[in-house]
Amino acid sequence: MFAKAPYARWVSAVERADASRISHAEVKNHRQLRALATAAVAIGIWFAPVPVGVDPKAWQLFAIFAATIVGLILQPLPMGAVVLVGVTLSTVTGTLHIEEALNGYANATVWLIVAAFLFARAFSKTGLGRRVAYLFIRAFGHKTLGLAYALGLADLVLAPGIPSGAARTGGVLFPVVKSLATTYGSEPGPSADRIGRFLMLSAYQVHAVTCAMFLTSMVANPLIAELTRKTLGIDITWSGWALAASVPGAISLLILPYVILRLTRPTIRETPEAAALARNELQRMGSVRREEWVVLGVFLLAFVLWITGSITHLNATAVALLGLCLMLALGAISWQDVLEERAAWDALIWFGGLVGMATMLSKLGLMTWFSSHVGQYVDGWSWPLALIVLVCVYIYSHYLFASLAAHATAFFVPFLTVAVAAGAPPYMAALAFAFSSSLCASLTHYGGGPSPVYWGAGYADVKQWWSVGLVASLLHILIWIGIGSVWWRVLGLF
Amino acid sequence: MFAKAPYARWVSAVERADASRISHAEVKNHRQLRALATAAVAIGIWFAPVPVGVDPKAWQLFAIFAATIVGLILQPLPMGAVVLVGVTLSTVTGTLHIEEALNGYANATVWLIVAAFLFARAFSKTGLGRRVAYLFIRAFGHKTLGLAYALGLADLVLAPGIPSGAARTGGVLFPVVKSLATTYGSEPGPSADRIGRFLMLSAYQVHAVTCAMFLTSMVANPLIAELTRKTLGIDITWSGWALAASVPGAISLLILPYVILRLTRPTIRETPEAAALARNELQRMGSVRREEWVVLGVFLLAFVLWITGSITHLNATAVALLGLCLMLALGAISWQDVLEERAAWDALIWFGGLVGMATMLSKLGLMTWFSSHVGQYVDGWSWPLALIVLVCVYIYSHYLFASLAAHATAFFVPFLTVAVAAGAPPYMAALAFAFSSSLCASLTHYGGGPSPVYWGAGYADVKQWWSVGLVASLLHILIWIGIGSVWWRVLGLF
Repeated sequence: MFAKAPYARWVSAVERADASRISHAEVKNHRQLRALATAAVAIGIWFAPVPVGVDPKAWQLFAIFAATIVGLILQPLPMGAVVLVGVTLSTVTGTLHIEEALNGYANATVWLIVAAFLFARAFSKTGLGRRVAYLFIRAFGHKTLGLAYALGLADLVLAPGIPSGAARTGGVLFPVVKSLATTYGSEPGPSADRIGRFLMLSAYQVHAVTCAMFLTSMVANPLIAELTRKTLGIDITWSGWALAASVPGAISLLILPYVILRLTRPTIRETPEAAALARNELQRMGSVRREEWVVLGVFLLAFVLWITGSITHLNATAVALLGLCLMLALGAISWQDVLEERAAWDALIWFGGLVGMATMLSKLGLMTWFSSHVGQYVDGWSWPLALIVLVCVYIYSHYLFASLAAHATAFFVPFLTVAVAAGAPPYMAALAFAFSSSLCASLTHYGGGPSPVYWGAGYADVKQWWSVGLVASLLHILIWIGIGSVWWRVLGLF
Repeated sequence: MFAKAPYARWVSAVERADASRISHAEVKNHRQLRALATAAVAIGIWFAPVPVGVDPKAWQLFAIFAATIVGLILQPLPMGAVVLVGVTLSTVTGTLHIEEALNGYANATVWLIVAAFLFARAFSKTGLGRRVAYLFIRAFGHKTLGLAYALGLADLVLAPGIPSGAARTGGVLFPVVKSLATTYGSEPGPSADRIGRFLMLSAYQVHAVTCAMFLTSMVANPLIAELTRKTLGIDITWSGWALAASVPGAISLLILPYVILRLTRPTIRETPEAAALARNELQRMGSVRREEWVVLGVFLLAFVLWITGSITHLNATAVALLGLCLMLALGAISWQDVLEERAAWDALIWFGGLVGMATMLSKLGLMTWFSSHVGQYVDGWSWPLALIVLVCVYIYSHYLFASLAAHATAFFVPFLTVAVAAGAPPYMAALAFAFSSSLCASLTHYGGGPSPVYWGAGYADVKQWWSVGLVASLLHILIWIGIGSVWWRVLGLF
């Protein structure tokens, strides 16, 4: 349908904070064709006969919403612009009142995402993220495998506060991984197999797991929780998410680096120099500065308040905003930092627009109609089989995507609805698709936020990348759906 | 209470798009003291006895709101951060539910402001703004006074599409004014009185008038319309605003440059070289590029749709968003331009937060209570006298402010409420304070968005600036309240 490589490169780049580096030519690649296809979806549905039992307004909005989703996949314009066009059309066509069209911009989940991006900025601006990575390397980095675990631990510890894989594993950890590889003279080419290829692939694969583990560790996770609430009425809290993910997450983090070590066979196995490098870097950074203490304190406070949210009744967004205000008041980040965090504004526009449209679709009764409609077709299916098949299709459809968020936005609700209609326990199905939304990043060299950076570093070719990704994805299905469902049963979630 | 010069310089700078140039030292100036004073307001009101007839929640919110307004004046943190703290406190204290606290971010007026900032960016990025200025100079710029009128016309024509004085009169027109002065060897110092001082002061003073003339020509105007709607239930539309302002605005624009010419007495009166300069610049710019045509077309479309809003029932925000989408789709601005427009995000945060709090105060019944309460005290006043006194106090209180938006936000509703309680016709009073909110920029060299640039150019000293400003303000009261009220009577507005 379209050339994969430039498309993927471009879309991934858009998701990253430093999207300004994309060349104009790439953006223009088949743009008109993709715009036409997107418009065709809108027009086709708009003028199709309205199904019995559906409000005509709901059908019009569905036409705009469906075209917006297709637009997010084909991207005739960057994602934010696509959604803005959708929001604008919904009101200019008279389908929604202007305040209905804008309702998503007051959604608490959307502002949780905005605040989380600003947390990420504080971590990288103050250097706290790098310091954490070097601390773990100094402690556990004496062997090659230990080095991978140290990087994984750093990723895990930073995950609750840095919701963007691009910022966390790409921005904060990549420079550390690269300098470790360089220390051992491992560069792209023949020396890649000394240690660089292993570290790069391990760090990237671990990121897919850490993304799945917290409500605030991947940009689309709060949206997924919101969609679950809207679709099924199930409230996945911050601590509920973390608890459900803890056991399968821990197992994945333990097994993955070892499996990748066996697959990539690095020639260097002892790494005393890495610990020395970490010691040097930490010495160069000096003692922890005031700004870092502030970020650390705020992060711990937010962490505690997030975990205890069901007791204190403090909303997760309120906690994140409180943390942001404290960092501003104590000078850990400046107001200019906030205004310059383009990734936050990008997320605001496109998540806000989508959440707004989804809310109105649900208010206008389309979701209910869709669920009951689907129910007729899947009646009598065996739900365990249906769920497994659906999860596999959900995960492997990510071969076609270059953004976790776009993939989850497009497919999460329909897949979940069908699984539940087939009889799967709602909470279990929601968790399965929620976690799969991050885990599928493992598959390709363009499938996740940090992939352009790690792929661009040049330590692995497509075959190496994809085979490691395939093995990781099979492991994930085994661990997260197999062991995971037992764990969720133990927790009494279904 | 605080040192005027650095405070004013700092606050004005914050309002400008390029606030990043402020030095850290300036920001820190008495910061703790100002933070303490702001907190004292919140705590004082919070723990004061709740007046009879007021919902305790409303009183708590009022404490936070009042402290936020004081914070906007004292600015212990930049305006956006102050409002964000207010919004966060309103929900963390349990006063508002999180979605109530965020409701302003779905407000149509707030998004009109955001979209308008992006219009401004399109004008300056494509060079269309400068081209318009040079076209007028080529046509009317053969004499010194004609030059001032040409600049005024350019400002007027750009005003509906560029809502920020800093962007319009500062960003687009200032470089033109400066190069005109330089052409005549008029630099700061002895040669300033050749032509530079006159042009600088005239361009600055004209900006206060153009800011008053359209709903979309000053950043706080949509907020003023929104507050009028919330306070009095009066809907000032885009065309209603423009019509009411047209006659006094035209008179001001005709008289002001001439009066300033008499006050500043430039020694050069004939300027054939200016027209030549404009011709050269236009030649150098070449023919109108595709992007400029797009911006021009979109601007004209938006203009027509804004004027005909009451017939088409298209909301002003929907029109602005439509224009923005067209400019994105046709490539006149890029999505990166949108994400980098920090002034838009700044405005979103602080207008959205304030509108949200004001909406909730009104819902909780505080506005109604306040109006009826004030009514007892001003009963029996002569309303024309009361209105004149109130407008004068409103205008001259701007000596204490360095931001039109902060001034209007703090004072518009209380002054309007008192005037109406004293018996003034509501629509007339609303217009009087609405227009005064922009006209008061004339007073000082720190009172408006573009003042740091024009003042910083160094062509006038404080005495010259303030005396011209005082004369202009007296003229404005005469023209806008005197002639204006007759015109509004003719229109049947009261």
